[in-house]
Amino acid sequence: MSPSKFALVASLLLASSPIAYGQTFQRLGTCPTFGCVFPPDQADFLAGAYFDVRLEVHAPVNGSEATGNPNPNPNFTFTIAKDGQRGRPTNAATLFGVREPAVETWQFGWYEDLFAQDAKTKSLVNVAGKAYRRVSLNEPGTYTATLTYNNGQKTEARWFVRDIPSRRRAKNVLLFIGDGMTTNMITAARLIAHKSVNGKYQTKMALDSFPILGHQMTHSVDSYITDSANSATALYTGHKSTVNALGVYADSSPDPFDDPKVETIAELFQRYTGGGVGIVSTAFIADATPAAMTAHTRLRALYGQVVNSFLYGQTNWTWTDWKGPDVLFGGGAEQFYPNKNSFQGQDYYKLFAQEGYQVVNNATSLASIDTAKRALGIFSVSNMAKWLDRNVYPANLRGKKSAPNGDGGDALDQPGLKEMTLKGLEVLTKRHRKNGWLMMSEAASIDKMMHVLDYERALGELLELDDTVKAAMQYLEKTGQADDTLVIVTADHGHGFDVAGSVDTKYFDAQSGDRKKRGAVGIYQESGLSQYTVADPSRGADANLVYSSGANFPANWDPRYTLSQGVMQFPDHKEDYRVKKGGPRVPAVNITGFPSGEYFASYVDAPTGILINGTLPVSADQGVHSLTDVPVFSKGPCQELFGGVYGNIDVFYGMAQCLGLSRPGKNGARPPNHGGPPSY
Amino acid sequence: MSPSKFALVASLLLASSPIAYGQTFQRLGTCPTFGCVFPPDQADFLAGAYFDVRLEVHAPVNGSEATGNPNPNPNFTFTIAKDGQRGRPTNAATLFGVREPAVETWQFGWYEDLFAQDAKTKSLVNVAGKAYRRVSLNEPGTYTATLTYNNGQKTEARWFVRDIPSRRRAKNVLLFIGDGMTTNMITAARLIAHKSVNGKYQTKMALDSFPILGHQMTHSVDSYITDSANSATALYTGHKSTVNALGVYADSSPDPFDDPKVETIAELFQRYTGGGVGIVSTAFIADATPAAMTAHTRLRALYGQVVNSFLYGQTNWTWTDWKGPDVLFGGGAEQFYPNKNSFQGQDYYKLFAQEGYQVVNNATSLASIDTAKRALGIFSVSNMAKWLDRNVYPANLRGKKSAPNGDGGDALDQPGLKEMTLKGLEVLTKRHRKNGWLMMSEAASIDKMMHVLDYERALGELLELDDTVKAAMQYLEKTGQADDTLVIVTADHGHGFDVAGSVDTKYFDAQSGDRKKRGAVGIYQESGLSQYTVADPSRGADANLVYSSGANFPANWDPRYTLSQGVMQFPDHKEDYRVKKGGPRVPAVNITGFPSGEYFASYVDAPTGILINGTLPVSADQGVHSLTDVPVFSKGPCQELFGGVYGNIDVFYGMAQCLGLSRPGKNGARPPNHGGPPSY
Repeated sequence: MSPSKFALVASLLLASSPIAYGQTFQRLGTCPTFGCVFPPDQADFLAGAYFDVRLEVHAPVNGSEATGNPNPNPNFTFTIAKDGQRGRPTNAATLFGVREPAVETWQFGWYEDLFAQDAKTKSLVNVAGKAYRRVSLNEPGTYTATLTYNNGQKTEARWFVRDIPSRRRAKNVLLFIGDGMTTNMITAARLIAHKSVNGKYQTKMALDSFPILGHQMTHSVDSYITDSANSATALYTGHKSTVNALGVYADSSPDPFDDPKVETIAELFQRYTGGGVGIVSTAFIADATPAAMTAHTRLRALYGQVVNSFLYGQTNWTWTDWKGPDVLFGGGAEQFYPNKNSFQGQDYYKLFAQEGYQVVNNATSLASIDTAKRALGIFSVSNMAKWLDRNVYPANLRGKKSAPNGDGGDALDQPGLKEMTLKGLEVLTKRHRKNGWLMMSEAASIDKMMHVLDYERALGELLELDDTVKAAMQYLEKTGQADDTLVIVTADHGHGFDVAGSVDTKYFDAQSGDRKKRGAVGIYQESGLSQYTVADPSRGADANLVYSSGANFPANWDPRYTLSQGVMQFPDHKEDYRVKKGGPRVPAVNITGFPSGEYFASYVDAPTGILINGTLPVSADQGVHSLTDVPVFSKGPCQELFGGVYGNIDVFYGMAQCLGLSRPGKNGARPPNHGGPPSY
Repeated sequence: MSPSKFALVASLLLASSPIAYGQTFQRLGTCPTFGCVFPPDQADFLAGAYFDVRLEVHAPVNGSEATGNPNPNPNFTFTIAKDGQRGRPTNAATLFGVREPAVETWQFGWYEDLFAQDAKTKSLVNVAGKAYRRVSLNEPGTYTATLTYNNGQKTEARWFVRDIPSRRRAKNVLLFIGDGMTTNMITAARLIAHKSVNGKYQTKMALDSFPILGHQMTHSVDSYITDSANSATALYTGHKSTVNALGVYADSSPDPFDDPKVETIAELFQRYTGGGVGIVSTAFIADATPAAMTAHTRLRALYGQVVNSFLYGQTNWTWTDWKGPDVLFGGGAEQFYPNKNSFQGQDYYKLFAQEGYQVVNNATSLASIDTAKRALGIFSVSNMAKWLDRNVYPANLRGKKSAPNGDGGDALDQPGLKEMTLKGLEVLTKRHRKNGWLMMSEAASIDKMMHVLDYERALGELLELDDTVKAAMQYLEKTGQADDTLVIVTADHGHGFDVAGSVDTKYFDAQSGDRKKRGAVGIYQESGLSQYTVADPSRGADANLVYSSGANFPANWDPRYTLSQGVMQFPDHKEDYRVKKGGPRVPAVNITGFPSGEYFASYVDAPTGILINGTLPVSADQGVHSLTDVPVFSKGPCQELFGGVYGNIDVFYGMAQCLGLSRPGKNGARPPNHGGPPSY
């Protein structure tokens, strides 16, 4: 085929590509043509921040995109031109001041749609690629990066290096992430925990007191529903990515550790200021939201390597020197005690201790750590116990075999998000009063409990977050840090949750048949008032429960009139509209005789409940993330940067601006590594 | 029974009342004891604004609250004390400067719960009451209003007259209400209408450009789910009310027009400034959101009287003089041409014309009205046609018998929200350049289409609102009014809507059985990209449709990959995840052989769809409102008043402050009526 004929075919493919491409399955996200550039078209950059560049040239072997030539042409070139410099393109290696990388080749396969998946007909693609490692763009402005391949085909990526003031305005940043938290959930949490008289709340959420409110858009670079990995990447690096990817753009190569990296705010902050970093989560600590602070991998599920990255940073490529966090508190002991789930079977308690960390494994020890030293606190196997179980139904902590030493005992002395966050703040304050600190504190199980349709536990986690925010703000005030600390509370994505009325559970239980039971739902005026704020002495042992801290939590988790709450897409499940006293909910299960990947409603989960047939694929045993923009609450220096509506990456650029992490300079020069004088 | 024994019984009743009271059914909202004060405890007031006071003393005849004495004691007293004046209570009539009203008596009944309703055992209550009409509190501060009844029982209401600056900062207020609009819906509308490249939107919603974002809490005074009547009341009067109530607190008397009134922002603005008022809606114009601008009734469904109130204001009680709006545009012709649905069978087209209104009935006539004259524009029977039908599937306007003259013809020449709003702004600008204007423009069918689970039409209405906001802002700029006009876009409540992924409709249709069809849903990475922004020439007649105005609407409403969208509570229905080309959706219907009030999934609505059994009472044929806080976007003078989280009544106080409508003075003095010098 002559070049001109090939060009014609390619352009036809391109014109029709939106139909075949970019839906349920994609050949490669962000790459609709056969020439791929990462970071892709429309990417934003912080001046001086490190990133890798990945180029790929695709040659489909078969499938609807096949051209008849399955051999990718390795002779491709890559230039970068900055707008306003007469558009003169410069060879990328020259601009970056690095050597021209070698060409690599590999093959991958994908399904073009669900029919192809059912038929198991994969479309194969041969690839020639290369990667420029640890480069930066230092001059603010707009760039055109051009990959020229296949004898004249071009992929152009417009890159925007933001012109951000360099003056540091905040010494510290405290970033709270309510994983999966939406405005709808905050509204419901307020309703069950705060008393209202004739429609006027007598107390409110700590979140309600924040002066500036924003909404951030959470979608991925290549799909409109995100997971926590790539949304955390966006929040921490200013680059949107792909589901399951941490701190990298997802390329097509088989190695999950060679994808093009982007530098995280934790890495930038430590590199430029020498300040301290804290990472706190109620999840297993290798989970996506904490992991994205330091990990760079296509596959978030490589948990052992994630924990290794907390301690040692990036080890397989030249990257920024990472000195470890000052504070690392959460669950996930299975990546720490030596076993098949820890990286190379190593003992990470020991390895952290070798690097000078004090290691604690329960709330009592946490309370008495030496705040002058770095601290690792791992308090359970897997995710930590939920607020509702720790505070209202503590018997549920027994028999879980969650002891953080992995001996199969129980983890009964677990701290909550508040205790971990406050202790972490003490360490950071003690150690980094001069250069400042950055802490990410995650209420992880808002998301985890929404996934299993356990709305009471999810709202309990949200209320614990709110209580933690309140206590943290008081701590900042008390220690004179409030004026120097930007506090942000946001989420990484939503779940399609809301409340539509009340349910008279007594009436519900007294009816026979699902259609009659549905008559227990009270809508509009018949929703009535929240009974969760009223202690009910007639309701047995857990009546009159009021959380001891004086914070605002429900006085009664099990009233007669409950919330008619739910999500908008779900697996098969039964619903009885009340708190699950025996522990977190399991709505859908396998049934003997059906394939193991197929789920049905659990009749044990809500024995008196109505049956709700699912709307998700039958392979889903739980609910899923949703599209909605999520709220951003901000207070402190630079708070005004977080008002209105914007992308999740703008949270990164706002924090980076506030911390003075934009370091404009000449392209090709290495920006200073850590150890430079703090600019605050 | 001696007084002391009676007091003991009452206090026991009070202690146990939260269990019996205030849920599915209530004896009377806001009145947990037997002595009722309206406005109730915790009410806020604007200095100088008119309101009525209603007092009631309840004597239960039977039921769980019965005391053995079914005769309400008519000897009750009512005093008001202002904090800081040594707490000295003053007789209310004296304080207000009115005569002591006479005592009235009546009886009403209620069900104590669903069991009582099933058994048809009503609890009856005898009432003695009185009402103080058209009073005001003029001195800012906190008051204690005390009803003393039944020989010493007391009901105390704390009232807050807000200390609001009187200086007028905006000449005009333009209030947009997206009925039922949530953040989740805005996110979905953006996704289908705005192109995105690698996760970066190339255009955005007009709403996304607003500098200040807030959230308002929408709950009623006596239930946590609201309807549009009482939420509109809160937005327009600063008083939360009860479901179905417009501009009044709901009392227990049988007359739906004697409930205690509160003054609306339209009434206040006209009274104090002589400025112009515009009311625009895509609903029938007697619907709650427009109605609450001028109507004062317990029952929003008294549509004929609502239309009468637009023209003549309050006619059965002394109230503010209302001179009629300058602009009244919408649907609902059935309350205008003489028929059983118009008030007293009168011809309201003629009555409006008699008061100097030019009357128009189609878009063509609307375009050429004399903007120097007041205008009534009624463009269809019932709700107006939807954006999607007017612009994409216009055949659906035929055969609807919606002609506004009531002759059974079709209303084919209907304007959209944009055309009505812009023309209304022209009238107001022409007539009230000096004294200013206030316009409320409602995108009513976001709500109406969400109710019937017709998500595409709902999002079309939302996009039309956004397009209208954009055009209105441009008009304000062009006419030099932007700096003088506060623009607010908000909602009155939500629906529990969200998007969880995509649906491959081709795969969906090819599967047999609901469980297999569910495999067509793509979640997370498999949600892919929005196909609504890409014209698809292979998809037949409506391919390449781009709305002609240049605004951002979907290029393709019927792509292969659609949104997996839904609400979290619903009636029985079938779902096929695609646009209904034949007109608005009817998800649930009656089935022969079942009671007429019982609904089942309509098999005609989505013939190839999966069956989703409902979660609402079987009496519901559509979805319902939800709890979520709703967004507030603001721009212009006073925009900063609308940031953060607050109640829906605060929207009123913000607008009133900005328009200088707080008029502090001496209690007992009449505040000035309209005709006073404009303060702007």
